[in-house]
Parts: sequence; structure tokens; C-alpha cells
Amino acid sequence: MATKSATAVRRASRSDTRDRLIQIGTEILSEKGFDATGLDEVLRRANVPKGSFYHFFACKADFGLAVVDNYAFLWDQKLKRLLRNPKVAPLQRVHDYIDEGVRGLRKYSFRRGCLVGNLAQELAGLDDSFRKRIQLVFASWERLLGECLDEAKLAGELPADADSARLANFFWMAWEGAILQAKLERSVKPVEQFRDIIFKFILARC
Amino acid sequence: MATKSATAVRRASRSDTRDRLIQIGTEILSEKGFDATGLDEVLRRANVPKGSFYHFFACKADFGLAVVDNYAFLWDQKLKRLLRNPKVAPLQRVHDYIDEGVRGLRKYSFRRGCLVGNLAQELAGLDDSFRKRIQLVFASWERLLGECLDEAKLAGELPADADSARLANFFWMAWEGAILQAKLERSVKPVEQFRDIIFKFILARC
Repeated sequence: MATKSATAVRRASRSDTRDRLIQIGTEILSEKGFDATGLDEVLRRANVPKGSFYHFFACKADFGLAVVDNYAFLWDQKLKRLLRNPKVAPLQRVHDYIDEGVRGLRKYSFRRGCLVGNLAQELAGLDDSFRKRIQLVFASWERLLGECLDEAKLAGELPADADSARLANFFWMAWEGAILQAKLERSVKPVEQFRDIIFKFILARC
Repeated sequence: MATKSATAVRRASRSDTRDRLIQIGTEILSEKGFDATGLDEVLRRANVPKGSFYHFFACKADFGLAVVDNYAFLWDQKLKRLLRNPKVAPLQRVHDYIDEGVRGLRKYSFRRGCLVGNLAQELAGLDDSFRKRIQLVFASWERLLGECLDEAKLAGELPADADSARLANFFWMAWEGAILQAKLERSVKPVEQFRDIIFKFILARC
């Protein structure tokens, strides 16, 4: 029993270390992108020796993909919480998502932006494993938003013939562009412009 | 006179070398971004020794800014050619711009995307000189497109109360997002989706 417990503790501790590396990697990659992020900085901030790193990840790219997976998981949770919120009318949920995005930009002084947007821009032309993984992330966001827009149609908030999937696809394209401009201007104004135009023209209430 | 000519030749040759470095830098930075671009590769492809590089540029960042300026100049010329084309109705000019973008994506197998979009994503949070320079580039694009949309209003193609400046601002945000998705999917589909939605909802003819 004692041995089993010790093994369990070691396992928990190993898992904690891996989680800490991924969490700190998420923070740093969100600000700096992949190439400019040095493993040394990740290890120093996570207080993990280099040897341990290679117990968890075969290489830096392997670590980067785990960071993308973590970011995708967190974002899916956030989108489900906001876009499936039964207490709020469907189009208001989209407003709530944008409002939370604005708060996030302010919280990190416009330095973080969107991790998958950043990595897509940086790596789409260079690395196929990142390119394909990030496509799956956007596909998931599109599906979740598309479902919310379907609910908006049922609730009579959008025209019955609105193409939810295409509108969701366009929303995320323009959202990524808005986040990029917000980083560039260090201002929430681009996201506010995005919101105003999306709701005036694209997600126009019936 | 002979000395003057020799000086002129040397000057022309110096200027050629600088231009070649910037042209090759534009190609490589468009694909790889700033951090992943090694000066050695630029110098090798331009066939220029390292010592010469520092005659022209104080450092890699200085070179990067010159590349941004060159890209901005080329793009301004292209936008003026297309968006001020007096032989074509104003909204058709916007179509023509998008069509040329689609051809460009195909030509470079979806690897290049938009240099200022790439560098904005990579450097906006890290380097203030790039951030401010790239803002100026987008401001110029917005002005040129805004003028074209003003002409569309005069021609009765857009409602008289359309806010050309805000629509132009939104167009470029969403455009950058569409180019990013095209790189990610290695497909022109995102840009076609962008075009269809922009013309159906945002730049809807009167």
C-alpha cells in the first residue's frame, strides 16, 4: 500500500509538472509566438530542470502542440459556458462572448491576443502539424457558434433562412482580424467596431 | 568627369544591392515572419556579404522596417491602380482587388499571406517601432478604400448614409482574418466566403 501511495504521489507530481509547463507555455506563447519563445524561459518560470522537460515532451514542437490542445480545451469550455447559456437569449450570448474578449484584452494590456491566431499566422506556412491542429480548433469554434446562431433562428432573432455555419465562419475570420488590430492599436476600439458592424449588418435581428 | 561617373556607378550599384536585399527580405519575411528569418539566408539569396549589409542597415530590425516600407509602397501602388480605376464602377474595383488577392494566394501556394498582417501578429506585442509603422500601413489602406466607397456612394452603389471610413476599417480587419484562414486551409475558400458575405451584407448595393 505504501508503495502504491508513493507511486500515486509521484504520478500526481509528474502530472502537476506537465500541467505547469503547459500553463506557462500558454502564457508565453500567447505573447511571443512560437519561434521567439525560448524553452529556457519556460523552464525557468515553471521552475523545472531541462531534463524533466524531455520526460514530458519529445521536442519544442511537441510542447507547442500540447499548448494548443490546452488552449483549445479552455476555449471550448468558455464558449460552451457563454454560447449555451440557457438564461440568456442567443444573440446576447454572442455579445457576452465579445464583452469577455474585451475584458481579456484589457487585462493583459493588449499583449496576448489569440494564441491560435498568433500561431496560425506564424506557423501555417511552415509546419503542417500545427496548421492542421489549429484548423480543428477553428472548426470547433465554428460549430459552437453555429449552434448558437441556429438557436437564434429558432428564437426569431435571425431570419429563418440565415446560413448559421457560414455566418459563424465569417464571424471568426473577422474576430481574428479585430483582435490583431486591437493588439496593433493597443485599444479595444477595433473590437467595438467589429461588434457594431457584426450586429448591424451580419447578425441583424429580424 | 571620369571620377564622377565612377561615383555614380558605385552609388547605383550600392542602391541596387540595398534594393535586392529588401526585395529578397520581403519574400522571405512574407513566408517566415521576422524572428524565424535568418539574415544568413537573406544574404546568401541576395549574394551579398555580411559586411555590406551593415552599410545599409544598422541591425535586423532596421532592415525589417525597410521591408515594411517597401511592402507599404508596393501595396499603395496596387491599391491606387485598382481602387482608383476610372474605367470600372467603384464596387467592382473592390471585387477586382479581392480577385487579385486570390490569384496572389494561389501563385505562392498559400504560403505568403499578408506581410504586414504576419508581422503585426508576431511583433505588435513585442516591438513598438514595428507596431506603429504597421498601423500607418493599415491607415493608408483604409483611406484608399474609404475614398473608393465614397465614390460608390456618389455613384448610387451604396446608401448615401453609409459610413465609408468604418466600413473600410471593418473590411481590412476581416480581410486579414480571411487571408489567415486561407493560409491555414491552403484554399481560396475563406477569401471567397469573405467576398460573398462582404458584398451580401456589408457592401450591399442599393
